[in-house]
Amino acid sequence: MGIRVAVAGASGYAGGELLRLLAGHPEFDLVAATAHASAGRPVAVVHPQLAGLDLVLGATDPTTLADADLVFLALPHGQSAALAATLPGSVKVVDLGADHRLRDADAWARYYGGEHAGAWTYGLPELPGQRAAVAAADRVASTGCYAVATTLALAPLIAAGAVFPTDVVVVAASGTSGAGRAAKPHLLGSEVMGDLSPYKVGAHQHVPEIKQATGATSLSFTPVLAPMPRGILATVTAVPTGEADPREVLAGAYADEPFVHLLPEGAWPHTAATAGANSCHLQATVDVDSGRVIVVSAIDNLGKGAAGQAVQNANLMFDLPETTGLSVFGAAP
Amino acid sequence: MGIRVAVAGASGYAGGELLRLLAGHPEFDLVAATAHASAGRPVAVVHPQLAGLDLVLGATDPTTLADADLVFLALPHGQSAALAATLPGSVKVVDLGADHRLRDADAWARYYGGEHAGAWTYGLPELPGQRAAVAAADRVASTGCYAVATTLALAPLIAAGAVFPTDVVVVAASGTSGAGRAAKPHLLGSEVMGDLSPYKVGAHQHVPEIKQATGATSLSFTPVLAPMPRGILATVTAVPTGEADPREVLAGAYADEPFVHLLPEGAWPHTAATAGANSCHLQATVDVDSGRVIVVSAIDNLGKGAAGQAVQNANLMFDLPETTGLSVFGAAP
Amino acid sequence: MGIRVAVAGASGYAGGELLRLLAGHPEFDLVAATAHASAGRPVAVVHPQLAGLDLVLGATDPTTLADADLVFLALPHGQSAALAATLPGSVKVVDLGADHRLRDADAWARYYGGEHAGAWTYGLPELPGQRAAVAAADRVASTGCYAVATTLALAPLIAAGAVFPTDVVVVAASGTSGAGRAAKPHLLGSEVMGDLSPYKVGAHQHVPEIKQATGATSLSFTPVLAPMPRGILATVTAVPTGEADPREVLAGAYADEPFVHLLPEGAWPHTAATAGANSCHLQATVDVDSGRVIVVSAIDNLGKGAAGQAVQNANLMFDLPETTGLSVFGAAP
Amino acid sequence: MGIRVAVAGASGYAGGELLRLLAGHPEFDLVAATAHASAGRPVAVVHPQLAGLDLVLGATDPTTLADADLVFLALPHGQSAALAATLPGSVKVVDLGADHRLRDADAWARYYGGEHAGAWTYGLPELPGQRAAVAAADRVASTGCYAVATTLALAPLIAAGAVFPTDVVVVAASGTSGAGRAAKPHLLGSEVMGDLSPYKVGAHQHVPEIKQATGATSLSFTPVLAPMPRGILATVTAVPTGEADPREVLAGAYADEPFVHLLPEGAWPHTAATAGANSCHLQATVDVDSGRVIVVSAIDNLGKGAAGQAVQNANLMFDLPETTGLSVFGAAP
Repeated sequence: MGIRVAVAGASGYAGGELLRLLAGHPEFDLVAATAHASAGRPVAVVHPQLAGLDLVLGATDPTTLADADLVFLALPHGQSAALAATLPGSVKVVDLGADHRLRDADAWARYYGGEHAGAWTYGLPELPGQRAAVAAADRVASTGCYAVATTLALAPLIAAGAVFPTDVVVVAASGTSGAGRAAKPHLLGSEVMGDLSPYKVGAHQHVPEIKQATGATSLSFTPVLAPMPRGILATVTAVPTGEADPREVLAGAYADEPFVHLLPEGAWPHTAATAGANSCHLQATVDVDSGRVIVVSAIDNLGKGAAGQAVQNANLMFDLPETTGLSVFGAAP
Repeated sequence: MGIRVAVAGASGYAGGELLRLLAGHPEFDLVAATAHASAGRPVAVVHPQLAGLDLVLGATDPTTLADADLVFLALPHGQSAALAATLPGSVKVVDLGADHRLRDADAWARYYGGEHAGAWTYGLPELPGQRAAVAAADRVASTGCYAVATTLALAPLIAAGAVFPTDVVVVAASGTSGAGRAAKPHLLGSEVMGDLSPYKVGAHQHVPEIKQATGATSLSFTPVLAPMPRGILATVTAVPTGEADPREVLAGAYADEPFVHLLPEGAWPHTAATAGANSCHLQATVDVDSGRVIVVSAIDNLGKGAAGQAVQNANLMFDLPETTGLSVFGAAP
Repeated sequence: MGIRVAVAGASGYAGGELLRLLAGHPEFDLVAATAHASAGRPVAVVHPQLAGLDLVLGATDPTTLADADLVFLALPHGQSAALAATLPGSVKVVDLGADHRLRDADAWARYYGGEHAGAWTYGLPELPGQRAAVAAADRVASTGCYAVATTLALAPLIAAGAVFPTDVVVVAASGTSGAGRAAKPHLLGSEVMGDLSPYKVGAHQHVPEIKQATGATSLSFTPVLAPMPRGILATVTAVPTGEADPREVLAGAYADEPFVHLLPEGAWPHTAATAGANSCHLQATVDVDSGRVIVVSAIDNLGKGAAGQAVQNANLMFDLPETTGLSVFGAAP
Repeated sequence: MGIRVAVAGASGYAGGELLRLLAGHPEFDLVAATAHASAGRPVAVVHPQLAGLDLVLGATDPTTLADADLVFLALPHGQSAALAATLPGSVKVVDLGADHRLRDADAWARYYGGEHAGAWTYGLPELPGQRAAVAAADRVASTGCYAVATTLALAPLIAAGAVFPTDVVVVAASGTSGAGRAAKPHLLGSEVMGDLSPYKVGAHQHVPEIKQATGATSLSFTPVLAPMPRGILATVTAVPTGEADPREVLAGAYADEPFVHLLPEGAWPHTAATAGANSCHLQATVDVDSGRVIVVSAIDNLGKGAAGQAVQNANLMFDLPETTGLSVFGAAP
């Protein structure tokens, strides 16, 4: 008998990807998947890509979830804290939502609103010290999708003193699944295909999370919606201090990481190369004209940006090899 | 020590997908991957999605391949026969190309040209008798992408006498990876995005393969290039005999098949739902106005249409569980 | 002072394309555009591509519309008849909806339901006799998008006795704008990109319209949703009689038509080539194996399939050159 | 008899769009279109969207071109200068290439290489003084695609002292037609669909052009290839001086411009909204966290970024209304 796992919020895109990963995971046994409006519907109808998975979505109630050894919460921001509070301490929890990511209650109030639920262990094992922290935790707040793409590119550079934390500029484009599965007119295929458009300019809720995770003190962050289902490409620029070579810092930071690849010089990340995988691809250079450091990172927003990251954290929490049930290779083209 | 596997033609799209599947296969050990123009280049450069796979493409010579227990040939049509002829009988071979699919030398001459290399065991285990035949074979000709999508929809109906074999009409649209990786102007992203266009109308080389595999005696087949990287949607229509219910025939034929799913009534196949998987999704109905049977099938042309199918055959040839290293679940959205 | 024109249903995709065409039309003056939920919103907000068009959407009431010389109705099926009934006879009307297309009340009841509003002049000028009929009419029912693509490919062949009307098989794929602008989950960009899927299989409401317009007596019609915003590619197959050469029949039928192009032999239609234009591109051949005639047609579903077609009809109704304000050239790539 | 116009380099994407615009232009008569490898082929075969345009591509020789009143050069960078030098002074020339854009010979050598051909009048009428300069010129260097998108967003802010010219960061994503029509593997549809990837990071040849046109003294510029055929979205950030409100500056600068629209507050540009048009859509805000000014601009890279811009310049050079033959409205969705 494996580890009993439940997923709350299983009808969305991150939830569907979680179910896919769990269905192929050799140690986690999916025992329940719950939803709100889709409760009562077969998983294979809600997620056509899971045809053959014989499971019906249940209602999201604590009793169902409390029976598991591990619960993933893939709920809209602001909904996971209340549900998590009802789960017994014996159940380990990985929250894919934002509720427990921020340590700063003021930042929570400013960017999300409502009451701050308090911070859990931040689930990005590639940060210094976090691998052990996640392994020791019973409650882990998995990362935001833009946050992981940006943080993996930036955090080692600030930590090593290679760039100043004071003038960081990020433009990051995401595939549409990052905007969720609720039917909104601006997310219709007719609108997004052939289109690029920014949104929440200068005011995205991942800003405080990125600052907390990287140590940046000033962050200009512009998110862009891109005409593809999956993927995030983050272009991160910062001013070099001259104290360390940025590419060497990244090479050192990720030399032993299974999921983060600094590409060979001259090769730049492609989001498609990470599709379906838990990988992050990175490249860095110095801009000829401005002298700025430019680091570009690519992830699958549903993989390393959500479901894959969550499974990676869960593997650590249950003392499994970190790569169990996860792929480092994307399904491209 | 696992089964030693080599891939010839590893630089193309089917080759890349094969490498991805083999990298995750628990029994097959990838020991060599060869290419023509890309020989000498690291796999991770040729296939960015395989960043982290530490392997350099070799030249395609028989000595390299003969050292393996199993060789996959993912070469352009007409190139695999010559290479296969040089491999010792002790090496099992799965050919993803067309060279050994057709039993009829005239059909080969008409649709492909050049000398007919002779037929191998046809690698579609879901056909009656073929699972055992593949398991017993040392040389297997894996199916064509359009052929598998059409055959899985049609063969059981003709075999059961549910439809006449005399007036079959198929329109099938494929993602662009089915057209290969050679840089041709009409395959540029600028040309294919936002575009649908037919090609090889009434003269596609999969026609004789489909007729051989299904028993159809008259086949109108129109392939269409679709603006997506992967996936085939085949719409198959035929005239019912009234002797058997088509949907029930399909349900019976595939009840125990791991990779073929007849969807619940009312649900129609989506190609995206099979992306990255070795699945085929099917649905059937009777057209209200014409009385024709309409069966629609969806596959990933690189999965069940190429690399996945090839691995499925190889699993059988080595007496492994048929689903080893293959997923039935697609990575969607 | 030009001809005063109003558009009802201006917030949808066909309505938006109508506004674009009317804004560039030298004889039609757009005096009012109305909508339901979007009434009161500036056109440039509802349709970002019309930034700079200084017009606010009004409520759809007869008084506003009755003040125009010409009214376009771009409403959902079943809503235009009631509105049209309130307009005075002095106002000419082009209905882009289905309400007045079918002559057969039974067909209406079967495919649309509700009361049959009666047929108007069918607005496809390329059909024999229809150019004059449209020019003489005050009320014109413009064609359905699939219907025009299929009819232009098929009608001349049946009329000339080149193919039998008894066994016509059509598979037609449409871009997503054909499914409208209402926010439905299956139309989200995340769902449609990378995906092909059929819908309303064997039961689409354009079947009776196509039969009426072409003379087909048995029609198998399968519509497919394709991952692109615009465009329809219809693959039409029928059994030849041997009485006339299909390609020559089409060449003769369209020799003098400004908007219908039979492509040079060997060239097949591309939907992208018709984007933004009022063109239909055609090609025909005989299938080698089955002997069937295959005709493929491409249109822009919002152009020749909706708004362009409607303006073409209106030009005729007001005795303007038929091509006024319309382009035969697509904006590609 | 209108103004006689020829296009050199008519087989590429910018050339095709020029032909489309010229075919609908009431004053310019297209008398010749030339190409290199495609010489001798009908335009309608090379550009399927121009089916019905009865013209054969000629060879690119000076004799053919010298017969025109106006010549557009849509050649690869480095090829137009030599050809232009052979044209008589009586022929007006608009160069869509880069050869005559830069005033600084060193910058030319550094970013393009080869001999500097010398600067022509820079063809961006929206810059102060340039409208009159273009109108008075016989030789005009039309803008680069990224340059126009960035310059329209940035130049007025620097000119007004609203932002510092010393720390400008731009990330701009382009549709694939911006990369041209040469068949290269990384531009295949299979590679670009579903993918975002940067290129020429920190070293793009439009950097000196943007600096020259805007007055920026330090520019970090990262171009990204986006999965769509057309469109550029440029995210431009700079440090405000506090001397002027950026949005008001833009509003003032473009109040009377026919092709540049500052969107209503809260609305952000969509590239799709400019498809096929000569428009530029802008929006600006101040980033909450960093205090940086963020301006986002959207254009059609083949419209305002190439062919549309060139026609706008030509209109001025021939004293025609600037908007003749150009649309401000995009064809969306």
